[in-house]
Amino acid sequence: MPVLGMVGGGQLARMTQQAAIGLGVTLRVLSGSPDDSAARVVSGVQIGDHDSLEDLQSFAKGCDVITWDHEHVPGPYIQALENAGTVCRPGSAALLHAQDKLVMRARLSEIGAPCPRFAAVPAEAPLAFVETFGREAGWPLVLKAARGGYDGKGVWVCGSLEDAVPVLQRALNEGITLLAEAYVPFRRELAALVARSQYGQGAAYPIVETVQRDGICHEVISPAPGLPAHVAEEAQRLALDIADRLGVVGLLAVELFETGSGDLLVNELAMRPHNSGHWTIEGSRTSQFEQHLRAVLDLPLGVTTPTAPYVVMANVLGGNDSDVYSRYIHVMAHDPGVKVHFYGKDVRPGRKIGHVTALGDSLEDVRERARHAADYLRWGPSLRGPDSIEGDA
Amino acid sequence: MPVLGMVGGGQLARMTQQAAIGLGVTLRVLSGSPDDSAARVVSGVQIGDHDSLEDLQSFAKGCDVITWDHEHVPGPYIQALENAGTVCRPGSAALLHAQDKLVMRARLSEIGAPCPRFAAVPAEAPLAFVETFGREAGWPLVLKAARGGYDGKGVWVCGSLEDAVPVLQRALNEGITLLAEAYVPFRRELAALVARSQYGQGAAYPIVETVQRDGICHEVISPAPGLPAHVAEEAQRLALDIADRLGVVGLLAVELFETGSGDLLVNELAMRPHNSGHWTIEGSRTSQFEQHLRAVLDLPLGVTTPTAPYVVMANVLGGNDSDVYSRYIHVMAHDPGVKVHFYGKDVRPGRKIGHVTALGDSLEDVRERARHAADYLRWGPSLRGPDSIEGDA
Repeated sequence: MPVLGMVGGGQLARMTQQAAIGLGVTLRVLSGSPDDSAARVVSGVQIGDHDSLEDLQSFAKGCDVITWDHEHVPGPYIQALENAGTVCRPGSAALLHAQDKLVMRARLSEIGAPCPRFAAVPAEAPLAFVETFGREAGWPLVLKAARGGYDGKGVWVCGSLEDAVPVLQRALNEGITLLAEAYVPFRRELAALVARSQYGQGAAYPIVETVQRDGICHEVISPAPGLPAHVAEEAQRLALDIADRLGVVGLLAVELFETGSGDLLVNELAMRPHNSGHWTIEGSRTSQFEQHLRAVLDLPLGVTTPTAPYVVMANVLGGNDSDVYSRYIHVMAHDPGVKVHFYGKDVRPGRKIGHVTALGDSLEDVRERARHAADYLRWGPSLRGPDSIEGDA
Repeated sequence: MPVLGMVGGGQLARMTQQAAIGLGVTLRVLSGSPDDSAARVVSGVQIGDHDSLEDLQSFAKGCDVITWDHEHVPGPYIQALENAGTVCRPGSAALLHAQDKLVMRARLSEIGAPCPRFAAVPAEAPLAFVETFGREAGWPLVLKAARGGYDGKGVWVCGSLEDAVPVLQRALNEGITLLAEAYVPFRRELAALVARSQYGQGAAYPIVETVQRDGICHEVISPAPGLPAHVAEEAQRLALDIADRLGVVGLLAVELFETGSGDLLVNELAMRPHNSGHWTIEGSRTSQFEQHLRAVLDLPLGVTTPTAPYVVMANVLGGNDSDVYSRYIHVMAHDPGVKVHFYGKDVRPGRKIGHVTALGDSLEDVRERARHAADYLRWGPSLRGPDSIEGDA
């Protein structure tokens, strides 16, 4: 049986372990700490730094294939591994598009994938550039760090040139490359999740709606309610096409804006199991984690048939106390059909520490069940945080 | 989060790890070897002997609750753990009924559960006793070791007194206590799987048909085809009642004979995840492994709703070469909906090394899919063993 190495010990590696156990594939992880989410549940853990070429090289030695729990491994290090014969999936050339938003935007525009208007902010006279960009594309506009952002970090919506000044200053101080993008007044956010194997086989999951709060995914609804079938198909084709053109091997998540007129624009790319696909563990005949394994190991892909008409996943964020487990009893007794996932992470307020999944025939009912469970696990019987202005229930 | 200790490192502990990862429960296993099925995929492995009280005691120290991957831990040792304050689930008093067939038969008869006629074979003049039993109950009869048998081992169907002689001789030599049972000319074998929590909550899975060959389970069909609804309900009630009367905490599998006249008789009991319940991983909203965790941890039980009209599981037995993985490609390409489970065990001919699950609307189709996948994984393109007289395909 092959040995798969995953760089990073977060919850994605943790849930990949569940799928690896099923297939009999040995999973090893390179993890920063033995307390990391995946490191707690994998026997083959190497403690090391994904920013160290030496650690990556020694990790790669024991593995047949290397894949990624996150996008933070430096591209040149991945190239060095590849040059030494390590099989990396996705490879450095594809992964670059999930690591660098400027590279991604340029390439997507080249292949005709719909994107918001964008431009690199030059190091010289950036304020004048942003002023011009804002005049042409309209305000507000969005400034983004080309690299390193996630969960809303590294993204600044600027209503005016005044808002842009401190962002530009910070970018200058910290050596951050910025891009400017037209702000998309979207109706909602969608995500297209596909897999592509080395053979070029593709598989697409239903298009989902993702509901964000403060830049963090709170809820995923599968399928996206009321999305016309031809738009859903268009989104699936777009994602499969991007995977193919970029040479992705493994999963590709394409985060999309649906505009007021129903058009789709690409927001972000990720090349790994993705929060928008956690619902597939119970909601699809093949979970995204199993699918990723199959894709990176050159195995034929599995069916993506849903197991229920509606599936809703809600993220569980950390509340103000760490005792999540004592709340299992209420959640499970209240709803014996809801599925609780906990990532074994220390609880910190606002941190993603788990998720819940509900499924069934009635969207309203399924959504309420998932929300109740997630809110209860976070806050307990009050179902809302002490500082909430609006109730979360 | 609680720490659950499972004594034994087989495939049941391995699949329990998948459920434990989901719930955020830390699973530790006491395993005879680091190469055992579960030991390969659990970070908290203690290598030790389930027959050593010292090993059990040191293992129990780090665990909140202890449960069992098999029935082979000596009862007095479990009692010693309990007396020292270790929470054992199921406890020694209940588990005894899964460890000793004489105790089980006596107790089930006492509570009115339907059993074949049985009697303990006395140490003195056993041959005369068996002759009398055979005359009264009829030939063939079945001799069974009261303890230690599994997968057909320790069970001898005797057509005549002549057949019984070597069994009695062996029992005498090896100090085995035997019981005699009337042979049940059953139409087929069924299994009832239920869970019971410490609180007394119960949950029942659909009644399944189990197809055995040479004493080894080959195929499980859920639900048992053509079983009248009132018989299925009766079987579920019987299993829930046994769980309650015996004080089982955790899963209870009741293996049943369905006689020609449609009556049910109890064959065996097991108090752990059971081969007849592997189909629940994909085929039920709550897998047996999650259910067992919930029951032994005092959590409310999950729904047992099936995810498809028919679910068929087929065991994968070892063939004549160890290279099972190279056959994944065919199986997955042939049927992208079939689910492959491999236990990470070394391949030996006839050994249970994994299972496959198929599900769908047509029983015939689902059964054929599961069989094909299991046969291919065992034998490769020939789909039959070199010594087969009848084809297995």
